[in-house]
Amino acid sequence: MFDPATLKFDANGLLPVIAQEHGSREVLMLAWMNAEAIAKTLDTKRVTYWSRSRQAFWVKGETSGNLQHLVEMRVDCDRDCLLVLVRQEGPACHTGRRSCFYTAVRDGEEVEIMAPE
Amino acid sequence: MFDPATLKFDANGLLPVIAQEHGSREVLMLAWMNAEAIAKTLDTKRVTYWSRSRQAFWVKGETSGNLQHLVEMRVDCDRDCLLVLVRQEGPACHTGRRSCFYTAVRDGEEVEIMAPE
Repeated sequence: MFDPATLKFDANGLLPVIAQEHGSREVLMLAWMNAEAIAKTLDTKRVTYWSRSRQAFWVKGETSGNLQHLVEMRVDCDRDCLLVLVRQEGPACHTGRRSCFYTAVRDGEEVEIMAPE
Repeated sequence: MFDPATLKFDANGLLPVIAQEHGSREVLMLAWMNAEAIAKTLDTKRVTYWSRSRQAFWVKGETSGNLQHLVEMRVDCDRDCLLVLVRQEGPACHTGRRSCFYTAVRDGEEVEIMAPE
């Protein structure tokens, strides 16, 4: 049985979680989970982070409707990071862009490579 | 001009960096960089992390030969996380697997989904 308590959390009881779109393999965002958020995510199949700013559970898309449906959770070799493959409804980024990684560094300059949808 | 000092680092002066294979879009690993490691990575095009365990710069693959060649660096909307698209030589994981995320949680059990190369 997979037990979230066997993972390695940081001093705040959190670990970083990478969300990747299952179909396109685009990396959408990085956020944080504690052991309970991991359990909730596996239980509900709705990706649930821990908001460090609000200090509360954050069901991704609960207010915006842009839910992340869990396809698969993966654990890294050091057990201190997760990868969640998701089916993303709407844009993942709060700016309305598909991914939070819409700024590239090209020839030493920041370039916006993705517009809001 | 892109200035790494404008990014948001944690209390240890670090931020998480996701490495993704440019061609296959496979997520390979997550590690950490400080501002100087970011500058070194951009300057040398060899992905250079900060090893939290050794408290030293870590040119990925410097000893194993499994270098990560930088294709593009991207910054997220909160400026507290990076995505590096790379061309990975050999396996990215120290276990000899292509990716560090070789363990999936399926039906509540941990399943190894990738063998060493």
